[in-house]
Amino acid sequence: MEYRQEAPRFFKELQSDICAALEKFESSKRFSSDIWERPDLSQGYGGGGDTRVLSEGQVFERAGVNFSQVEGHLPADMSKKLVGADSEQPFFATGTSLVIHPLSPLVPTTHANFRYLEVADKCWFGGGMDLTPYYLFEEDATHFHSVAKQACDKHDENYYVRFKEWCDQYFYLPHRAEARGIGGLFFDYLGRDEEDALDRIYAFVQDAGRAFLKAYIPIVERRFRLESNQQQRDFQLLRRGRYVEFNLIYDRGTQFGLATGGRAESILMSLPPLVRWEYCFEPEPGSAEARLLEVVRTPRTWV
Amino acid sequence: MEYRQEAPRFFKELQSDICAALEKFESSKRFSSDIWERPDLSQGYGGGGDTRVLSEGQVFERAGVNFSQVEGHLPADMSKKLVGADSEQPFFATGTSLVIHPLSPLVPTTHANFRYLEVADKCWFGGGMDLTPYYLFEEDATHFHSVAKQACDKHDENYYVRFKEWCDQYFYLPHRAEARGIGGLFFDYLGRDEEDALDRIYAFVQDAGRAFLKAYIPIVERRFRLESNQQQRDFQLLRRGRYVEFNLIYDRGTQFGLATGGRAESILMSLPPLVRWEYCFEPEPGSAEARLLEVVRTPRTWV
Repeated sequence: MEYRQEAPRFFKELQSDICAALEKFESSKRFSSDIWERPDLSQGYGGGGDTRVLSEGQVFERAGVNFSQVEGHLPADMSKKLVGADSEQPFFATGTSLVIHPLSPLVPTTHANFRYLEVADKCWFGGGMDLTPYYLFEEDATHFHSVAKQACDKHDENYYVRFKEWCDQYFYLPHRAEARGIGGLFFDYLGRDEEDALDRIYAFVQDAGRAFLKAYIPIVERRFRLESNQQQRDFQLLRRGRYVEFNLIYDRGTQFGLATGGRAESILMSLPPLVRWEYCFEPEPGSAEARLLEVVRTPRTWV
Repeated sequence: MEYRQEAPRFFKELQSDICAALEKFESSKRFSSDIWERPDLSQGYGGGGDTRVLSEGQVFERAGVNFSQVEGHLPADMSKKLVGADSEQPFFATGTSLVIHPLSPLVPTTHANFRYLEVADKCWFGGGMDLTPYYLFEEDATHFHSVAKQACDKHDENYYVRFKEWCDQYFYLPHRAEARGIGGLFFDYLGRDEEDALDRIYAFVQDAGRAFLKAYIPIVERRFRLESNQQQRDFQLLRRGRYVEFNLIYDRGTQFGLATGGRAESILMSLPPLVRWEYCFEPEPGSAEARLLEVVRTPRTWV
């Protein structure tokens, strides 16, 4: 299938563009690059990747931008879920995924992922981008969603509404009755059941990927110089706990990665550098912290 | 079944004894008690509990000691796993569970749990206790295991070896190829398939429960006054990350609790107050941190 060669080229380029844009905020810290390989295809799993991490920056406490391309055999239960097959199936997966944890509680955390999968004789694209603010600036939320919507509208006028809802449903913690953040886009299985649409879907995935920096960087620029205090930092660390809960309990990417014997350090790079849990925390009514909770408890329309 | 009345009485008493023993280390902090109820049996789930938490102590950064007694209906997939039934089944569950996160990196974290379950027409006991040191003092590990072994030996000379191995297998993170700590006891389904053994099993569970303080308190006494430094604190926070990974990805109690609509704050009370993740951390060869990693990577015989 032609995307096996083409998609990784795009995903690598996207990784480099994103790392370069983030490094501009840092005076001395740079991304390190860990190029790793797993040549043990005989054990049902092989491939490699390039894990880029920037730690302890002035603006980014940790940013991780992964590229990977792996192949092997999927366990029967996963094959069943993904393509309805009753037995182990060959798979190929490639993509870029990133999680950015800024130092300041006023700069939102973000996650994006763009990927191409083949399982048995099916292939499809998936991905998305979403924003997790600790303090809500409505213009930031609107900006992020507007850029996402533009990337969608160019390709299909139904995409934005569909992928925005999918995002709200996906990044949801039922045990907290809370969304992880204020959403964005989430899509999966695009083209799996309509192979002749793959070219057009790939064009959309590229535009969505390129839209990420336009959606996120202006928000960082607006907020990274603002002063914040210890109470805001504490709230950020506490909300990061919800991020960890989502990623470890519910995230399919994490589960897929760990279950297929993926590189743990690359997968769990999404976890924040410092996190706090507090028993039964409740913010002051009417506070900025309470407003954030309202928004994650009741997803809104942003554009 | 007679244990429905009797077991909760014992579990509550155990909870109170443990809280009282821990409070002796604190000059001003005391356990708070949240008595909660879920009377919505009509929605397939009811019951309540008493969640006791001590936070920001001089010795215990957070200690949580739960009692709960819940009943309702288990989803079909869980009923299948537990009693081999193909449909939703009524269940009753009661127990005490605790997780103690000391402030000092030289005092180990510990977890214990003793529980009684009924699903459909089966009933059984489960539980255990285990130790998670950040810095290894061999005499502490030996002491903890010796007390656990004594409680076992009184009832069945095969228990200790069996439950120690079960513990090593259960508290294991495959994606890290590491045990969560240095183990202890873990047992489950005791009496499920031999109902006439339940009296003798209940006697063992009580002795194991009572042994917990004998196993843990002397270790706290030996270590809590020792000075520690920032590097040791950092390593503790990093290892606490592994604790979070285990509890959220693998722990059956957490999954059972969240899947049956349990009280999230009581279940996730097990998560540490402050946690750190660092990409690809590796300790200095030969250091105390490296020795700890050796022990969690290769479970040992302690008695």
